[in-house]
Amino acid sequence: MAHETGTIPEAVLEKIARAREIRRRRFALRDTHVTMSHGSGGKATHNLVEGVFAPSFSNPALDRMDDAGLLEAAGTLAFTTDSYVVSPLVFPGGDIGCLAVHGTINDLAMAGAWPLGLSAAFILEEGYPVADLQALVDSMAAAARAAGVPVVTGDTKVVPQGHGDGVYITTAGIGRVIAPAPVGQHLARPGDRVLVSGQVGNHGVAVMLARGEVGVEASVTSDTAPLHTLVRALLEAVGPAVHCLKDPTRGGVATTLNEIALASEVAIALEERAIPVHPAVTGVCELLGLDPLTIANEGKLLAVVAPEAAARALEVLRAHPLGRDAAIIGEVAAEPAGMVFLRTDIGGTRVLDMLVGDPLPRIC
Amino acid sequence: MAHETGTIPEAVLEKIARAREIRRRRFALRDTHVTMSHGSGGKATHNLVEGVFAPSFSNPALDRMDDAGLLEAAGTLAFTTDSYVVSPLVFPGGDIGCLAVHGTINDLAMAGAWPLGLSAAFILEEGYPVADLQALVDSMAAAARAAGVPVVTGDTKVVPQGHGDGVYITTAGIGRVIAPAPVGQHLARPGDRVLVSGQVGNHGVAVMLARGEVGVEASVTSDTAPLHTLVRALLEAVGPAVHCLKDPTRGGVATTLNEIALASEVAIALEERAIPVHPAVTGVCELLGLDPLTIANEGKLLAVVAPEAAARALEVLRAHPLGRDAAIIGEVAAEPAGMVFLRTDIGGTRVLDMLVGDPLPRIC
Repeated sequence: MAHETGTIPEAVLEKIARAREIRRRRFALRDTHVTMSHGSGGKATHNLVEGVFAPSFSNPALDRMDDAGLLEAAGTLAFTTDSYVVSPLVFPGGDIGCLAVHGTINDLAMAGAWPLGLSAAFILEEGYPVADLQALVDSMAAAARAAGVPVVTGDTKVVPQGHGDGVYITTAGIGRVIAPAPVGQHLARPGDRVLVSGQVGNHGVAVMLARGEVGVEASVTSDTAPLHTLVRALLEAVGPAVHCLKDPTRGGVATTLNEIALASEVAIALEERAIPVHPAVTGVCELLGLDPLTIANEGKLLAVVAPEAAARALEVLRAHPLGRDAAIIGEVAAEPAGMVFLRTDIGGTRVLDMLVGDPLPRIC
Repeated sequence: MAHETGTIPEAVLEKIARAREIRRRRFALRDTHVTMSHGSGGKATHNLVEGVFAPSFSNPALDRMDDAGLLEAAGTLAFTTDSYVVSPLVFPGGDIGCLAVHGTINDLAMAGAWPLGLSAAFILEEGYPVADLQALVDSMAAAARAAGVPVVTGDTKVVPQGHGDGVYITTAGIGRVIAPAPVGQHLARPGDRVLVSGQVGNHGVAVMLARGEVGVEASVTSDTAPLHTLVRALLEAVGPAVHCLKDPTRGGVATTLNEIALASEVAIALEERAIPVHPAVTGVCELLGLDPLTIANEGKLLAVVAPEAAARALEVLRAHPLGRDAAIIGEVAAEPAGMVFLRTDIGGTRVLDMLVGDPLPRIC
């Protein structure tokens, strides 16, 4: 565990606990909206931290309230970061808070790593309601707790009204690499199979519909979820056979597989009919002329695995609650290097390029 | 070193190098201004990454272009993050780019840690000139190189014009704790001496003057600088005697020492005349009714050390280019716990509170 306290002497732990109590008594948040002073680093910042962040995220590493959190670790570490600017801040199936936790856990998992701790940095807009901020922070803290990954350090800045958009969150994460062999986008080999852990396109479509701009109604919820236990199960079962792990977020499956094809200097051929897509997502995409393969996911992974391990890998994914709809969707070939092809339902083959342009801005 | 490549097989390194070359040829940035598509995660994002970020930050960990950077580490790690929203983006003595590197290195150093690697997440505003972005990224990369700390992972998002302010940067950092004994804001003890590594208030005043709003002209430059080598020198000389290290950024010396007094349940008494302040900073503060002790610094540290080590600690700080003006400025007492006092030049004593309100918003 990242917030192991075994190495901290009892007397110091007591002192930290007492300091928490002193802070709780000394700092009280009375404001109902975020003010510029909440970003000053002075008393108002402490009021906001004690009023909103500290109670929600409380854990021994964070409770020290030092400028850095401490973690015990050894070996190869994975380190990642993402900023979240999703609009709207709340959408069916999630919000920017849990998304910021899941996204960074997933980037660590895709490096074959087990997450040890997260950081959370907030850029708040002056005038944003404190109650709404508290709801997002609570969602973030709940997501971190559910995943078993503590938020060990953080920061808060405030920008003037009109220079932000309520809340931007940047999370970073540290993980310990548990993959028994190197995993990376440059390691796909001809003959490998491509697996996806479930239906694609749900997150992007859910966020788009939540904006209410497209005049389409459909019941689609974001798939936002932490994939570290799914990855652990996969690595435990077929570890050395796993060559690439990538979560198809912005740019979707199409962009992600193009990245693998480029980095590995291989071709990838997909079977369109094998790719799981929720009927409502298919429907919305057809109406709006979008391709589900370029739409963001926040709780799905792509795995490129050696052919002899593909069936077992599929079995393991399907046995996990987050991989029930997993499928083998394609195969890696040697040539033409750097290209991705889609064999369509009607028997044709087309080049599947990366996402060009941005039909769905601010999806995460 | 964080970007050690000893564990990566030669064949994989060659593959990464070839993939870099392929990316360089395939992605070309032709836009002169940031567009929403640069945040899509698709081809335009790759064009921006290859055009601006990848060449500037290039190092083996980042060049893999995986979702996470890999680092080798063992022991107790420090982990920290800060968002930077300073306005203006460029100011005398620095800019948001080098500030984001120095600030996170310093937070690691204040945990008694040697920095191993940084992450960098950018929130760009649609319409921001690419040339200006390149200048900030170059400054950031130069600061990281000069400090010997690689940027191993990153992210780019774009928000619509009017929802950002050019560039916001969030850095996170990982460091290996090198302090031989625990260091933290709750560890100050009665009798300890308080040292500052140089003149206070320069950064905040430089940024304020750069805004041109106050009708005062003075030649003050930001003190933004990485303090890790200064901290290493101090720890090597008097390690076990160093009880607290804190950089007085937002909220200044006054807020930072109040945090220590609260967390350690001690009183701190400062000698005003011992605190080094640049004459131009004193002048500007008198004109504008500001207190240099509540103004942000970005290249200064406060150290609380055992009394018998104070003279040696001062000597070591002064022998380092970033500590030439270091001084012993105060002393820790048992009572009244949680309070900071200032013995003024004219012989009186006043309570020195945390910063209340925010006279200088968006200073970092």
